[in-house]
Amino acid sequence: MQYITFDEKRPMDLVLLGRVAVDFNPVDYFHPLAECTTFKKYVGGSPANIAVGVSRHGLKAGFFARVSDDQFGDFVTDFFKKEGIDVTKIRRCEHGEKIGLTFTEILSPTESSILMYRNCIADLQLDPADIDEEYIKNTKAILISGTSLAASPSREAALKAVMLAKKNGTVIIFDIDYRPYNWVSEDEISIYYSLVAKESDIIMGSREEFNLTERLIEEGRSDEESAAAWHKEQAKIVIIKHGKEGSTAYTNDGNRYSIKPFPVTALKSFGGGDGYGSGFLYGLFEGWEMIDCLEFGSAEAAMMVASHSCSEDLPGPDEVHAFIKESKEKYGEMIARA
Amino acid sequence: MQYITFDEKRPMDLVLLGRVAVDFNPVDYFHPLAECTTFKKYVGGSPANIAVGVSRHGLKAGFFARVSDDQFGDFVTDFFKKEGIDVTKIRRCEHGEKIGLTFTEILSPTESSILMYRNCIADLQLDPADIDEEYIKNTKAILISGTSLAASPSREAALKAVMLAKKNGTVIIFDIDYRPYNWVSEDEISIYYSLVAKESDIIMGSREEFNLTERLIEEGRSDEESAAAWHKEQAKIVIIKHGKEGSTAYTNDGNRYSIKPFPVTALKSFGGGDGYGSGFLYGLFEGWEMIDCLEFGSAEAAMMVASHSCSEDLPGPDEVHAFIKESKEKYGEMIARA
Amino acid sequence: MQYITFDEKRPMDLVLLGRVAVDFNPVDYFHPLAECTTFKKYVGGSPANIAVGVSRHGLKAGFFARVSDDQFGDFVTDFFKKEGIDVTKIRRCEHGEKIGLTFTEILSPTESSILMYRNCIADLQLDPADIDEEYIKNTKAILISGTSLAASPSREAALKAVMLAKKNGTVIIFDIDYRPYNWVSEDEISIYYSLVAKESDIIMGSREEFNLTERLIEEGRSDEESAAAWHKEQAKIVIIKHGKEGSTAYTNDGNRYSIKPFPVTALKSFGGGDGYGSGFLYGLFEGWEMIDCLEFGSAEAAMMVASHSCSEDLPGPDEVHAFIKESKEKYGEMIARA
Amino acid sequence: MQYITFDEKRPMDLVLLGRVAVDFNPVDYFHPLAECTTFKKYVGGSPANIAVGVSRHGLKAGFFARVSDDQFGDFVTDFFKKEGIDVTKIRRCEHGEKIGLTFTEILSPTESSILMYRNCIADLQLDPADIDEEYIKNTKAILISGTSLAASPSREAALKAVMLAKKNGTVIIFDIDYRPYNWVSEDEISIYYSLVAKESDIIMGSREEFNLTERLIEEGRSDEESAAAWHKEQAKIVIIKHGKEGSTAYTNDGNRYSIKPFPVTALKSFGGGDGYGSGFLYGLFEGWEMIDCLEFGSAEAAMMVASHSCSEDLPGPDEVHAFIKESKEKYGEMIARA
Repeated sequence: MQYITFDEKRPMDLVLLGRVAVDFNPVDYFHPLAECTTFKKYVGGSPANIAVGVSRHGLKAGFFARVSDDQFGDFVTDFFKKEGIDVTKIRRCEHGEKIGLTFTEILSPTESSILMYRNCIADLQLDPADIDEEYIKNTKAILISGTSLAASPSREAALKAVMLAKKNGTVIIFDIDYRPYNWVSEDEISIYYSLVAKESDIIMGSREEFNLTERLIEEGRSDEESAAAWHKEQAKIVIIKHGKEGSTAYTNDGNRYSIKPFPVTALKSFGGGDGYGSGFLYGLFEGWEMIDCLEFGSAEAAMMVASHSCSEDLPGPDEVHAFIKESKEKYGEMIARA
Repeated sequence: MQYITFDEKRPMDLVLLGRVAVDFNPVDYFHPLAECTTFKKYVGGSPANIAVGVSRHGLKAGFFARVSDDQFGDFVTDFFKKEGIDVTKIRRCEHGEKIGLTFTEILSPTESSILMYRNCIADLQLDPADIDEEYIKNTKAILISGTSLAASPSREAALKAVMLAKKNGTVIIFDIDYRPYNWVSEDEISIYYSLVAKESDIIMGSREEFNLTERLIEEGRSDEESAAAWHKEQAKIVIIKHGKEGSTAYTNDGNRYSIKPFPVTALKSFGGGDGYGSGFLYGLFEGWEMIDCLEFGSAEAAMMVASHSCSEDLPGPDEVHAFIKESKEKYGEMIARA
Repeated sequence: MQYITFDEKRPMDLVLLGRVAVDFNPVDYFHPLAECTTFKKYVGGSPANIAVGVSRHGLKAGFFARVSDDQFGDFVTDFFKKEGIDVTKIRRCEHGEKIGLTFTEILSPTESSILMYRNCIADLQLDPADIDEEYIKNTKAILISGTSLAASPSREAALKAVMLAKKNGTVIIFDIDYRPYNWVSEDEISIYYSLVAKESDIIMGSREEFNLTERLIEEGRSDEESAAAWHKEQAKIVIIKHGKEGSTAYTNDGNRYSIKPFPVTALKSFGGGDGYGSGFLYGLFEGWEMIDCLEFGSAEAAMMVASHSCSEDLPGPDEVHAFIKESKEKYGEMIARA
Repeated sequence: MQYITFDEKRPMDLVLLGRVAVDFNPVDYFHPLAECTTFKKYVGGSPANIAVGVSRHGLKAGFFARVSDDQFGDFVTDFFKKEGIDVTKIRRCEHGEKIGLTFTEILSPTESSILMYRNCIADLQLDPADIDEEYIKNTKAILISGTSLAASPSREAALKAVMLAKKNGTVIIFDIDYRPYNWVSEDEISIYYSLVAKESDIIMGSREEFNLTERLIEEGRSDEESAAAWHKEQAKIVIIKHGKEGSTAYTNDGNRYSIKPFPVTALKSFGGGDGYGSGFLYGLFEGWEMIDCLEFGSAEAAMMVASHSCSEDLPGPDEVHAFIKESKEKYGEMIARA
C-alpha cells in the first residue's frame, strides 16, 4: 500500500535541510583518539550522507545549507556536484563561520565516540532568507534534519521551510537526528522537535529521540502511543528505531512493519542510520511495499557500519540488492524480517 | 452566546506572560522628547497594564515574568502586589539585565512616538524553566503577549507555556502586541506569531499584526479570510482592530460583532489597546454577550487615551459603567455600536 | 610655578574622551528610588559634565564620543552645541546602542546611590577609527575618562588617543573616574588604568581609585608613594582625593598642595568631582598657582553638591569667584586651605 | 658579549604564554587542500613548538595556556608531559571551547596556506586569573606570543603576565607571531603589540610584524630606526627577519649581527620560525655569542622546513650541531653568515 503520494510532475525528488560537515576518521582506529595519528577526510553530516545515498540510488536531490567560505567549503560542494546533487541553494558563510568537523574515535566495533567542532558553525547560519519557495514547490519531498533546529537562524530557516512545504503540498520528512551539541535545554528540544513533528508526513527517530520530542506533551509513551499520537497530527508513517533490536514503521492505517539488522562485521557503530534513511526513502520513492523499503534500508545500514566512511562508501542500488541476496542465501530469506 | 468556557474550579482567572516595563511619560508634553524636562514614572508594558486592568475589575491575575534585580524591579513588583496580582512567578534577572524602559514622546493628541530601552532586557530573559505546569493548571486562561516571542529564551518560555496550557485545558489568549524592537526579521515574526496563533482560543490584533502573522502562510487576506483561517485551527474568537475605524470580533459560529471608539478628548495615542483588552476580557469572564464585552473594552480604551499613564489610571468596573452611561446620555445609546 | 605647559598655538583647549549620558534625578527626592514618581532629565556623565564646566569658564572644548541615534542623542548633542562644545567628533551609534542612563536615588544629603543603564551602551561603542589624529594635534590637552577603558572597542579608542596624544605632544589628563559597571575583573582594571596612568601628565583620582590602578604593580602604597611612582613615569601632577578630608596635588618638583571642601548644605553626594575637575582645569589653563587652581575646583565642587543637576547647574567663573569671596567672608580666608 | 642576564637561581628557564593547537598536515601534499584525503595529526601552535624545541635542547620549560576539555586537550597535554614540559599551568576550558586546529595546504615547497579553526577557541580563553605570580617569579624568562593579544580574556592574561614579569625581574621575550585571525582592526594590533614591545627585553619579528606594531607610533621605519626606537624603551635585543634574505639581531650596544638561511630542500614554507626561535633562545640560555645563537637558530629553522611536522620533528642539540657541521663541510664555513 502507498502511504505517501509524491507529485510526479515535480523535477526534484528530495531536498534536504541541515548540516554538511567534514568527518575525520582515524586510519589507525581501535585506539583512543588522542593516540590516533592519521586520519581520512570525508564529507559527513547525517543529511549530507542521505543526500549522497539517495543520489547514488538515482534520485534527484537538492540541499539547503550554509558551508564555510574556504577550502573545506569547496571540498563538500565539489563532492556534492560530482554526486549529482544540486548545489544552487548551498551558500557560503559571510562572517568566517567554519564547516563542522567530526573526529571519530573508534575504540572497537561497538564503542565509538565523536569529537565535534560545532562552535560558531556554518550549518547553523542557514538563514530564513535562504529558503526559496520556488525550490520547495519544485520538489516532491523535503527532509528536515532535527539538528538544524538547535539554534537560530537555522532554526527559523527550518521552520520556514516546513511552513512553505505545507503551503505548497510538499511531503515533509522529519529525521530527528539528535546531537546534544548546540542545544540549550531539554525544553527547547521538546518544543522544536514537536513543532516540526506535528507538521510532518514521515517521522524517523530512535525511541530516545521520540522521548525527547514528547517530553512536554506526555512522558513515558510506548511506541504504539507515540505513533498513534503523531498519526492524529499529520503523520502517515512513524518509524521508531531500537538499535540492534531493529525498527518498526507504524502507518496511519493501523499497520506496523518491523525489520531487524542484517548480520555484518561492523567496523564502527555509526553511519548506519544514514544508510537506513537513504535506502528506506529510495524504496518509498520507488513505490515499494513498506516492508521492502525497510529491508532495503536495513541492508544499506549494515553495509555502512562495515565501511570506513559515512558518505564515500554509500552503495548504489545494485550493490544493496546484491548484499540482500547474498545475506539471504547465507542466513535465510527471513534474516532481517521480524 | 458563550464562545469560551472557563473551568470555574480553577483559583486563578488569568495568567499573563510577557513584559513588565517602566514608562516615563513627560509632564511637559506636546513637545519633542529631546525638549521635555520632567517625567512621571509608571508601571508599563502591555501585558502588565492588562494585568492591572483586570485586577481592578476583580479578576485574580498572575504573571510569568523576569524583572531587574534593582530598585525598578522592586517598584513594579511592589505595584503589582498592591494591585492584588500574584507575583510568585515573577523572578529577578541574574546577569544584570535591566527592566525595559519606555520614554513616550507626546507631540499632540494624535502624534506620539516612543523611545524604548530594550537591549539586554529583563523580560526577554524569561526562561522555559520559569514556566510552572501547576500554575498553568490552576488558571482558567493564559494570555501570551507576542513581544515575548521576539527573542530567546523568552520565546521558548512562551512556546512552552502554550504547550502546557494546551495539555492542561487552559484557555489560550494571544495578544499579538507587535513591537518592532528585538525582532531579527519578518520571517521570524510570521513563524512565531503563527505558531502561537494556531494554538490559541482567542486572537487579538490589528490588521497590520494579522498581516505580519500570516505573511508566510498567505498574503493579502481580508479580515473575513483571516478569521475563517484561524477558526479552522483552534480559535473561537478572532478580534481584528482598525484603530479609529473600530474593531470586530469574529466568532467561530460565523457571527461578527463590531464596535467603534467612544468619543473622548485624547491626551495620547497609546494605552487604549490595554484598556480595550482589560475591559473585553473582564466581560468575557463575566459571561457577557460578545457585543457587551466589546463595548466595555471600547469604553475603557477611550478612558485610557485620555489619561497620562497606561497603568495607574486604569479604572474599576463602576467607573467604566459610569463612563458608558454618561457617553450614551450625551451621544445616544448606539454611540459605539457599529 | 607652572607644572604643565600648553601649546598656545593650538585652537582647542581640551578634548574629552568618554561617556555622555542622561541623568534622571528625582524631583521628590529623599525617598527610595522605587517610590519617587517624578524625575528631571539632564545631560550627565563625568566627562560630559567637565566639558560643560570648562566651556562655561570660557575654554574651547571638544569631545570624542558615541551617542545614540535617537531623541536622547539629539538632546545631548543639542545641549553641547548650545554650550559651545565642538560636536564634530561625536558620532551616532549604528546598531541600536542606547545612550547610558543614570537614575539617581537621593535618600539624604549624604546617602545616594545610582541605578545605571549601561548594557549595550552607546559610549562604549567609541571606535579606534573615530579617533582623529588631526583633532588631537589641534588641542592643547586631552582628558581620558577611565570609564572609557571598561570595554572594547572604546578601550582601544582611548588607548589610541593616548598614543596619538603622546606622538603629537598633547597634554594627557587621566581622570580615573571608576564605575564598577562593565568591568570584568579587578585585573582588567589595574591593567588598563595603569597603562594610561603611565603615559599621563596629570592623574586625578581618589585613594581607592589609585589602589585599583596599582593593584598589580604594588599594593598598599601611601599617597606619597603613589605620587612618587607616577612622577617616575610621565606625571607632572598627581591629585589624590580623600572625600570630605580634602585632596592633595603632588607635583613632580616634590611639592604638595592640599585643599579642603568648602562648607555647604549638600543636596546630594555626587556631582562634586566634576565641578572640582572643571574648576581645577580652568585654573591650570589660566596659568594660576597650584593652590589657587585647587581652591577654585573645591569651590565649584561645593556649589555642585548643593545643586539638583550635575551639568545644567554648572557655574561660570564669576559665580565661582563670588562663592569663594562669600565663603571667605563668612568663614575666614583660610576656610578651604589645609 | 652577554646582552641578557638570567637569574640562575630560578628553577624554570622559560615559560611560554599563548596558543597550543593541533596541526593536521596532509600526507598526500603538493595538492590543493580540498583534494587531500589523508592527514597526520601533530601538536602545533608557534609557542607550543618553541616549548617543545627548547625542551629537546635541555631547557626547563613551562606554559600558561588553556586547552580544550576533550581528547585533543589530552593529546597535547600528554605530548607536553612526555617532552618534559611542566603542564601545571595548562588549564582546561570550561565552556566547551575547542583547541585551535590548523589544516595546512602544501601546494609546493614554496606555496603553502593554512585553514585555521579559531572561532570560540581554547587558547584565547586564557584568563588573567590563570596567571600565577609565583610561577613567573620562578622562571628566568617568559615568552609572550603576540597571538595571545588578539582577544580578551587572553589579551589581559598576557598583559598581566608582562606586568608581573616586570615586577619580578623576569626577562620578557616578545615573539610577535602575527596571525590575521581573531584581530578586529589594525589599530588594535598596533596598540597591543606596541604595549608589549615597550616592556620587552627581546623582540622578535618580521619586518611586516614590526610595521604592524609601529603603525600608530611612526610609519615607514627602517630596521635600524625600529631597533633604535625599541632600544630606547626596554629592549636589549631586537631581531628583525626578512624571510629568505636572512635576519639581523640589533643589540642595545649599537651592534648588529646578521645570519642567512642554510640551504635545504624545503618541504613546506612554515615551521622554520619556531625552529629559529628554539635554537636562538637555546644559545642565549647557554651564554653563547650572539652570532652563534643566530647560526644555531638558522640551522634549526632549515631543518624544520624540510620536515613534515612543526613539533614532532624538532631536533635535539646534537642533531643541530651535526647539521651545521655537515652544511659547513658541504658549502663552506661562512655559508649562513652574512
